[in-house]
Amino acid sequence: MNGPNLNKLGTREPEIYGTSTLADIERLVSERACSLGAEVRSFQANGEGELIDWLQNEQSAADGLIINAGAYTHYSIALRDAVAGCSMPAVEVHISNVYRREAFRHESLLSPVCTGTIVGLGVHGYELAVEALVQLLKKN
Amino acid sequence: MNGPNLNKLGTREPEIYGTSTLADIERLVSERACSLGAEVRSFQANGEGELIDWLQNEQSAADGLIINAGAYTHYSIALRDAVAGCSMPAVEVHISNVYRREAFRHESLLSPVCTGTIVGLGVHGYELAVEALVQLLKKN
Amino acid sequence: MNGPNLNKLGTREPEIYGTSTLADIERLVSERACSLGAEVRSFQANGEGELIDWLQNEQSAADGLIINAGAYTHYSIALRDAVAGCSMPAVEVHISNVYRREAFRHESLLSPVCTGTIVGLGVHGYELAVEALVQLLKKN
Amino acid sequence: MNGPNLNKLGTREPEIYGTSTLADIERLVSERACSLGAEVRSFQANGEGELIDWLQNEQSAADGLIINAGAYTHYSIALRDAVAGCSMPAVEVHISNVYRREAFRHESLLSPVCTGTIVGLGVHGYELAVEALVQLLKKN
Amino acid sequence: MNGPNLNKLGTREPEIYGTSTLADIERLVSERACSLGAEVRSFQANGEGELIDWLQNEQSAADGLIINAGAYTHYSIALRDAVAGCSMPAVEVHISNVYRREAFRHESLLSPVCTGTIVGLGVHGYELAVEALVQLLKKN
Amino acid sequence: MNGPNLNKLGTREPEIYGTSTLADIERLVSERACSLGAEVRSFQANGEGELIDWLQNEQSAADGLIINAGAYTHYSIALRDAVAGCSMPAVEVHISNVYRREAFRHESLLSPVCTGTIVGLGVHGYELAVEALVQLLKKN
Amino acid sequence: MNGPNLNKLGTREPEIYGTSTLADIERLVSERACSLGAEVRSFQANGEGELIDWLQNEQSAADGLIINAGAYTHYSIALRDAVAGCSMPAVEVHISNVYRREAFRHESLLSPVCTGTIVGLGVHGYELAVEALVQLLKKN
Amino acid sequence: MNGPNLNKLGTREPEIYGTSTLADIERLVSERACSLGAEVRSFQANGEGELIDWLQNEQSAADGLIINAGAYTHYSIALRDAVAGCSMPAVEVHISNVYRREAFRHESLLSPVCTGTIVGLGVHGYELAVEALVQLLKKN
Amino acid sequence: MNGPNLNKLGTREPEIYGTSTLADIERLVSERACSLGAEVRSFQANGEGELIDWLQNEQSAADGLIINAGAYTHYSIALRDAVAGCSMPAVEVHISNVYRREAFRHESLLSPVCTGTIVGLGVHGYELAVEALVQLLKKN
Amino acid sequence: MNGPNLNKLGTREPEIYGTSTLADIERLVSERACSLGAEVRSFQANGEGELIDWLQNEQSAADGLIINAGAYTHYSIALRDAVAGCSMPAVEVHISNVYRREAFRHESLLSPVCTGTIVGLGVHGYELAVEALVQLLKKN
Amino acid sequence: MNGPNLNKLGTREPEIYGTSTLADIERLVSERACSLGAEVRSFQANGEGELIDWLQNEQSAADGLIINAGAYTHYSIALRDAVAGCSMPAVEVHISNVYRREAFRHESLLSPVCTGTIVGLGVHGYELAVEALVQLLKKN
Amino acid sequence: MNGPNLNKLGTREPEIYGTSTLADIERLVSERACSLGAEVRSFQANGEGELIDWLQNEQSAADGLIINAGAYTHYSIALRDAVAGCSMPAVEVHISNVYRREAFRHESLLSPVCTGTIVGLGVHGYELAVEALVQLLKKN
Repeated sequence: MNGPNLNKLGTREPEIYGTSTLADIERLVSERACSLGAEVRSFQANGEGELIDWLQNEQSAADGLIINAGAYTHYSIALRDAVAGCSMPAVEVHISNVYRREAFRHESLLSPVCTGTIVGLGVHGYELAVEALVQLLKKN
Repeated sequence: MNGPNLNKLGTREPEIYGTSTLADIERLVSERACSLGAEVRSFQANGEGELIDWLQNEQSAADGLIINAGAYTHYSIALRDAVAGCSMPAVEVHISNVYRREAFRHESLLSPVCTGTIVGLGVHGYELAVEALVQLLKKN
Repeated sequence: MNGPNLNKLGTREPEIYGTSTLADIERLVSERACSLGAEVRSFQANGEGELIDWLQNEQSAADGLIINAGAYTHYSIALRDAVAGCSMPAVEVHISNVYRREAFRHESLLSPVCTGTIVGLGVHGYELAVEALVQLLKKN
Repeated sequence: MNGPNLNKLGTREPEIYGTSTLADIERLVSERACSLGAEVRSFQANGEGELIDWLQNEQSAADGLIINAGAYTHYSIALRDAVAGCSMPAVEVHISNVYRREAFRHESLLSPVCTGTIVGLGVHGYELAVEALVQLLKKN
Repeated sequence: MNGPNLNKLGTREPEIYGTSTLADIERLVSERACSLGAEVRSFQANGEGELIDWLQNEQSAADGLIINAGAYTHYSIALRDAVAGCSMPAVEVHISNVYRREAFRHESLLSPVCTGTIVGLGVHGYELAVEALVQLLKKN
Repeated sequence: MNGPNLNKLGTREPEIYGTSTLADIERLVSERACSLGAEVRSFQANGEGELIDWLQNEQSAADGLIINAGAYTHYSIALRDAVAGCSMPAVEVHISNVYRREAFRHESLLSPVCTGTIVGLGVHGYELAVEALVQLLKKN
Repeated sequence: MNGPNLNKLGTREPEIYGTSTLADIERLVSERACSLGAEVRSFQANGEGELIDWLQNEQSAADGLIINAGAYTHYSIALRDAVAGCSMPAVEVHISNVYRREAFRHESLLSPVCTGTIVGLGVHGYELAVEALVQLLKKN
Repeated sequence: MNGPNLNKLGTREPEIYGTSTLADIERLVSERACSLGAEVRSFQANGEGELIDWLQNEQSAADGLIINAGAYTHYSIALRDAVAGCSMPAVEVHISNVYRREAFRHESLLSPVCTGTIVGLGVHGYELAVEALVQLLKKN
Repeated sequence: MNGPNLNKLGTREPEIYGTSTLADIERLVSERACSLGAEVRSFQANGEGELIDWLQNEQSAADGLIINAGAYTHYSIALRDAVAGCSMPAVEVHISNVYRREAFRHESLLSPVCTGTIVGLGVHGYELAVEALVQLLKKN
Repeated sequence: MNGPNLNKLGTREPEIYGTSTLADIERLVSERACSLGAEVRSFQANGEGELIDWLQNEQSAADGLIINAGAYTHYSIALRDAVAGCSMPAVEVHISNVYRREAFRHESLLSPVCTGTIVGLGVHGYELAVEALVQLLKKN
Repeated sequence: MNGPNLNKLGTREPEIYGTSTLADIERLVSERACSLGAEVRSFQANGEGELIDWLQNEQSAADGLIINAGAYTHYSIALRDAVAGCSMPAVEVHISNVYRREAFRHESLLSPVCTGTIVGLGVHGYELAVEALVQLLKKN
Repeated sequence: MNGPNLNKLGTREPEIYGTSTLADIERLVSERACSLGAEVRSFQANGEGELIDWLQNEQSAADGLIINAGAYTHYSIALRDAVAGCSMPAVEVHISNVYRREAFRHESLLSPVCTGTIVGLGVHGYELAVEALVQLLKKN
């Protein structure tokens, strides 16, 4: 699940986010999941409500969550509640190293309700998240 | 009016929110209102904009508001402005005792623009809110 | 149980607290309790120690507590400890909407040790508290 | 682009925002733009996601932005990111003098990503913003 | 009205408070009041509740208040409410210069509800307070 | 009225403030005022006292004020009091976008006592201020 | 000297405070004092004023003080002043480890005016305080 | 010594400062001083440097200081240093009750270097300051 | 490189850190590195100085760094400077989800000088770090 | 276990720490332990890593810990983790009354992971710690 | 350049600032400069505006600046801007060790715009500043 | 005495610290000391404990201290205590202007226990420190 403005990846501030597009990321994630015997459904929206709606609708069909909530990471308590309500392993991803940017990007409301977090490793971070999630699900 | 994730009541974190569903609450509220000669329209949405849209559309037809804005309680200045713009008695309800939970749930942006607030009394709090609202409207 | 200066209700700053006297409130509370098959003992004092003494003495004979601790709400850790020590359902009441007043009235030390809180609904809030308490005791 | 509750201008708290409606403002803006040889597209929404969607869709066709994000000004990092992603001159407008109001209205997340800000000059501020934007575009 | 530990004046930390006793102060105040045609009733207690009780009982018989609430100055919201509830001119006195002492003595909860404050002028401050109060009452 | 270091405009940090000199600005302002049937008196000083002296002396002859107080914007309560004491419409101007600079430049003590504020629009901001002021005076 | 709610020891929250009663503690303290050739007078009250009254009355007859001020530890400047006014060695005791509890219990207003502090060692802490006090008095 | 904007007393915000002019105050002060056998030199300036210059020049000829530094009270460390450097009794006066006004007026940098402070008693506060100063000088 | 107390993994608080020992982790890391054609040198120390010494000595022979600095993460500016001085890609790992623990574990001084961070994914996080580092080195 | 600079006791700032040397303390502790049937091993180091090394090595052979971590008390999270990892009763000692000294000495990172704390009772505090520890071990 | 109250050196609080006068310092500085082949112009004023005026007038004729801005160091953003606008090497000097004094003297607004700072070395610090400045100018 | 990472001077971040090596600095310091009739012993270590050990061992043989504690400057209370325990004149040196860098480098725990501080003057600052120290020792 990808949050606001991530549909603009590749053209938006590429010196921060790189040149991969959201489609590139979704393909990378699918391929890595496939190679590990898993399947992925992707979603992106700019609206907080749409993201929560999708989470609520998909959660019964899913075993885990990879989430990059973009700017909502830092203030959406509603999204945090929705993730906490899913009761499944979740891995949070950030493409850029948020700790080198504005102070308001240093705190994540999602981290405490996710299992783990991968920050600053570019789009490769999504692939690592797939591997982590598959590993987490195996253990349970 | 109920905010984000309240459509999941009954299954979401029942140790905090109890086992009543949103439908149960809406029925309780309707029955209590009916017994006091009042009528209620219910609405729930996960999106901040949809909640504001609904408030703006319904306000001319209503005499008062019962609102549980869920997580938006703590950061949605937009919703606060919409409630303030309604210019009618409003009672804020929270099912759980928010003062026993995370610090970011201790402040409500809505409380100063509502007439009163009922916290921690479970779904029964909605019934008390109906009684309070009817009482407030009688006085005016 | 009513705290400091509440014995002056009716004459003290009526634009904030209304014109009902403490005797009026005690009668309203008794009548509502009576109609629900319950009985109430009332107490008011200006002294923190007297309030704690009374709580300690009465707690074995009571099933629940309705408390408006007035100004002590905001700084009396001793009263908080006494309420927590009672180990019974407690409902906190405030006549005025404290969130519209000075910042030091926005925090209640009692809320986390009470079951629930009713704020800003005038003296009617006491009646709602009676109903809430009776309901809470029925559930246990 | 106008944010939440600005569609209620004229009737909502007129002692703060005046009696002009959003339609009045849009007409004033169009006329001033026209007189300077420019053309304006207007949009208002209550939802954060809808505002971001519109910005993303319109940005390739536009040379500049006039934005009054209403309450989102103070907490929507997502909108800030969307404005920053537009990479075009932007002028922020506020009708009322936000510095005379609640403390949470004193900080704007948008100001650092806009070229300039016009505050407290009523609906006339929108006209000045048109002139400023045309001037900024001429310089480039 | 004098608050906690002021009954120990003269022997308690004389390098801060000087060597005058509370009886000396009460005599000075009475004499100055007498010379201005006024009469004073004095009271000292260590208990917050007793001070409030006395204020409530005496207020109908008095035209003004001179108050040194000692340590309660800095945290007793209950006493502040009692003074505010008196609705009469009040002059706050502190013997020592509280701004040269611990940080927690720099803020007075009483100052905003008193007409004026006299700090650091020793026991002579009480005499000035009498003169100020008489002057204030003449003006009304 | 222009504050400290603004007499150095054009040579001082031109990457922030541009290359226009103070004389250029005063001419632009005069011309725009003239075209709107108004007349302007200009003043610049580095001293807080001199600025206040000038404001006190000129205020009876003027209908409105355009003020860029430079660094005094952020700490001169004395200047704020002087502007508030003028009791006439005032428009605050800042050439650079202060919200992109050091945190101590984000707060203006003057904004709450001015009618409105124009920030970050370069020397053109002064011209807009003239138009805004004339418009404000017409409305009264 | 023991402060508010300590008369309820043994029954109040025994998982925090243990099962010894106040009478048990007073006996332990007396016995230990006796074995060291000292004598102890005990006092407990829930009221701030009563505690200060007792301190003022007893101080001339005593050589040292053992104090557990309970909740007053954290906000009673009046009690702090009374202890400071005693001018004798004082040992502060807390039964529970206050540093593992709510943040507002981490600061003691009394510690800077006592000679030393013993925290978290249960009722045995009172015995150690007796030994410490006798040792301190021997040295003088 | 009177600080910035106090030369405008009587016409500037009379609902806060009253209708007495600075000349009225200087006459009151002189008369009271005269009646106590003392003589006063008065000075007012809007500039921080001028006030310090005057203090440095006059201090050898004076025995004490009455100072209302106006807005400089709250931020002029330079003036504070100048007053501290005088090494003579000083009484600080404020006409209005600064504790009922903006938060930035609640702290005085001068109070810790003055002997005492008189706040909120109107122009009469200056007369009390004269009496206090004469009394202080007698004691030395 | 592993910091203080990580040599106790497996026995120290296993409910937080799991049952793998440091030797287990070092073997996992070596195997994963080997499978990707890379080689790893491991080091653990409890001393800040020893960790810095090792970093300084090894940096010329290495292409990248995987670092779990344990408690030093949160306060060792010296270690941060040493990592920054290495000028090579670095991946920070934390076994537990630090955002669910004490507030002082939420800030990492190392994150801004590392390329990326992997948190809360158990010992598997080390394996992902190896993969991430190899990927980062390929890109350069 | 004694931390940095405690090897200099007796000569280092004796007005704060007294004239006993570390050898004196170790002898007192041994004697008191001996008299209670216990045995003590002593260690002092200036290095954080050496202290942690020693704790890790000795913990299996010990039943309890007496620790004065000196300056590390206030910032060494690594030492805190090492103490927490010991899983045995621990008593924290400070010779001086840290609450009368610099603010940065008021917080102890160790207190929440120790059983109890003894502050300000000089070297005698170590003897009390021995007694407390023996008592604690008897109870288990 | 020397700021407010430095003209009183030698007589003002000599226990802090020593007994050298400003004339002594200016002679020391001149002699040291002369011995290094440089020439110095000295200036002292109590007014912020006068200091800025002098800086603006002298900057074209100078190669570097030695500045002790006295109390203005801590709050004069205007002076900071003037120093930054000079674009030449600057060395800041403080006679006393400001870090041992009031907290408001610990922050210097000038340090970030000066090349370096010399604190606490008495009047000798001025001589070192001359040497440093000459050295800095040689390097360019 | 030089702290952590200063052994890497010349190669570590030369744009901040310049190209001189630690050996260069030690030679400069020795030569300047020699020319003033003094002798210097140099030491560098990365470990906090080693630095304290060295200070304790060398202090009896030395008359003064020049210290650049690197990163420990900002958090090592242990080192601060060791310096304070030396009871000799000490001059603190920083090569770079720490006030232009991260906020956590703006506070020095050592400054209040050193005689003076020299910041931002490059390696030349060490030479000035030698001169200052010799001068300080002459005065005593």
